[in-house]
Amino acid sequence: MAPRGTEHVALVHALGRVLAGDVASPHDLPPFDRSLVDGWAVRAADTETASQQTPARLRHAGEIRMGAPARIAVGPGEAVRIPTGGMLPQGADAVAMQEHVQTGEGEVAVERAVKAGENVVAAGADVRTGRVVFARGRRLRAPDLGILAGIGRPRVQVTLQPRVAILSTGDEVLAAEDPLQPGTVRDMNGAALAGAVLASGGIPEILGVVRDEMAPVEAALRRAVAGYDMVLVSGGSSVGERDIVTDAIARLGPPGIIVHGIAVRPGKPTVLAAVGPVPVIGLPGNPVSALVIFDLFARPVLERLLGMDPASRGWHRVRARLAFRLPSAGPREDHRRVKLEMRADGLWAAPLPAGSQILTSLTEADGIVVVPLGGDGFAAGAEVEVQLL
Amino acid sequence: MAPRGTEHVALVHALGRVLAGDVASPHDLPPFDRSLVDGWAVRAADTETASQQTPARLRHAGEIRMGAPARIAVGPGEAVRIPTGGMLPQGADAVAMQEHVQTGEGEVAVERAVKAGENVVAAGADVRTGRVVFARGRRLRAPDLGILAGIGRPRVQVTLQPRVAILSTGDEVLAAEDPLQPGTVRDMNGAALAGAVLASGGIPEILGVVRDEMAPVEAALRRAVAGYDMVLVSGGSSVGERDIVTDAIARLGPPGIIVHGIAVRPGKPTVLAAVGPVPVIGLPGNPVSALVIFDLFARPVLERLLGMDPASRGWHRVRARLAFRLPSAGPREDHRRVKLEMRADGLWAAPLPAGSQILTSLTEADGIVVVPLGGDGFAAGAEVEVQLL
Repeated sequence: MAPRGTEHVALVHALGRVLAGDVASPHDLPPFDRSLVDGWAVRAADTETASQQTPARLRHAGEIRMGAPARIAVGPGEAVRIPTGGMLPQGADAVAMQEHVQTGEGEVAVERAVKAGENVVAAGADVRTGRVVFARGRRLRAPDLGILAGIGRPRVQVTLQPRVAILSTGDEVLAAEDPLQPGTVRDMNGAALAGAVLASGGIPEILGVVRDEMAPVEAALRRAVAGYDMVLVSGGSSVGERDIVTDAIARLGPPGIIVHGIAVRPGKPTVLAAVGPVPVIGLPGNPVSALVIFDLFARPVLERLLGMDPASRGWHRVRARLAFRLPSAGPREDHRRVKLEMRADGLWAAPLPAGSQILTSLTEADGIVVVPLGGDGFAAGAEVEVQLL
Repeated sequence: MAPRGTEHVALVHALGRVLAGDVASPHDLPPFDRSLVDGWAVRAADTETASQQTPARLRHAGEIRMGAPARIAVGPGEAVRIPTGGMLPQGADAVAMQEHVQTGEGEVAVERAVKAGENVVAAGADVRTGRVVFARGRRLRAPDLGILAGIGRPRVQVTLQPRVAILSTGDEVLAAEDPLQPGTVRDMNGAALAGAVLASGGIPEILGVVRDEMAPVEAALRRAVAGYDMVLVSGGSSVGERDIVTDAIARLGPPGIIVHGIAVRPGKPTVLAAVGPVPVIGLPGNPVSALVIFDLFARPVLERLLGMDPASRGWHRVRARLAFRLPSAGPREDHRRVKLEMRADGLWAAPLPAGSQILTSLTEADGIVVVPLGGDGFAAGAEVEVQLL
């Protein structure tokens, strides 16, 4: 799996996008030795013994203008006026702050010694010429855009965003627009998965609800595989009497189904498949399971289609103590939604309702705790790792 | 400060937007008692003594169709076939899983007792009729979109996104597009702040670089205040010889400057002002300071213009132990960038370079540790709170 292409975008449109190649700096950043203060560029050695009683008296040799090259050189016994951000002139190796300098007729009195390099940020202190500032696969954040602007990259090459088709199945499922009939529910997965795809850097397209019969499901899947970079289909894949979605995926073509059914709660009825280069993921019908499985399997796939280095996703793990016991879900790994609370004695995680029908257990959650399969689960007060949402 | 208006958007465009009003559910979610499994709807009392040896023999009284109203009632001694997600028929109070039922001619044998409510999710278990599912001010996340779809809200009313003008000042500052000249640097704040505004829910507009002179700075600020909901201007506000940006802000009109200079490192030269309803924030010229001050002052202002409840920003605090000592920055609160690392004995935070000229200290950071002003700072190994970026 790889990005299907790249494009150039302006920096303001590059937030959250993934770099298509390494970016190296064509020059030092800052590009020259800069003064950190308003003051006087000097040779540090000239100020070695300076004090308020015995100031170092230096010849006023000129002034550095902001944004202009430093044409004056600072010779021994000389000082040159320099503004904050000004370019350090040749010969100088430090800047005396104006607060510690008295100015007189043609001379200045430096009343405090400065060390070499003092009040100066050296050329290349932030980024050195040729250094790879951001590696291919980085998802760009706000400060990154500043660096890219600083090294003269008003546009960057990023990977194309994968287009993700979202299908829902079920004879009882209506669109959000439809009036509710007895025995029917509205499609919650379409909107929830579209949000998850967007948040992960993809472009979602909700293709709607398909009746739970082979012909329409297979036809809808074929259209989705032909027109999109990835396909999510929810519902209908539980290992029961009818398993039309799984059968339909199996008919689409090689390599076909790779995994069917996983030992995770919620989310057992999960299908991982591919048709040619297009990943097809069958998600459980209920929205909590669908979103948990999305995070676990679909987002990593989407990130590979984005060419994204998962390390650039930002920090999203914390440790917390469990407010109450979480028993093991037996033969399945349990992904429990928790709410976090900072107390005086540290961070606590309170588990929310277990039922995968309760989507509000996810809207109220701050994170997920994974309870391993088998074993005793976690005792109340146990320290656990929480994946932040 | 309040949102300047609201708009209706489709759910797929509502991710990250802020609700303009409370959203209550017009019906229960799920709208009816639903079966969690494929099986048989029964009266739990009829199965009380059921076992493999002595199954409860019930009359096969019909079948519930998926997506259809449950027209059949379940009488004493009866069972009705029901699919996962099917509507529980009147009279029934539980579902026996098909794995525990043998079917015969006109009757079914339930081989395991079920309790009232077993394998059923009750109407309203997720959301009850009339309950406010999301309060005004909530920033919408992916699972929220699922709930909104489920309660029949394909479109929601959200607040308008504030338009934020971004100005940079400085005679030495060029646009990212410009070729570098000796003594000049490129504008890094425009792009970095645009990214920060976008990530916070605003619409940034980079108005470019203005020469550090009163007339052009004042004119640019007046245009920005007239045309945008918020103005960010960076550079030129240090308390030095020239303080044109601060003076220009002071001329714009009442209420004017509220705060000038704050005891924070990096970021001392900060101006908080307003012109009529438009907040104007003067940020330091160097990008690390500008972004730290943005997080501290500009983002909360932007969130108020969005009408956003800050609690809906998601969890963004962790505790970690300091990999090495962080001394106090004396009379200023120090905002130090740190990199997080999960070790066997817990989470550790390694401080990155202190210099506010080093923007790579922010691009490499996972979070910020605030060292209080005065005092001794933090010892190596001390547990500190980290604000995640």
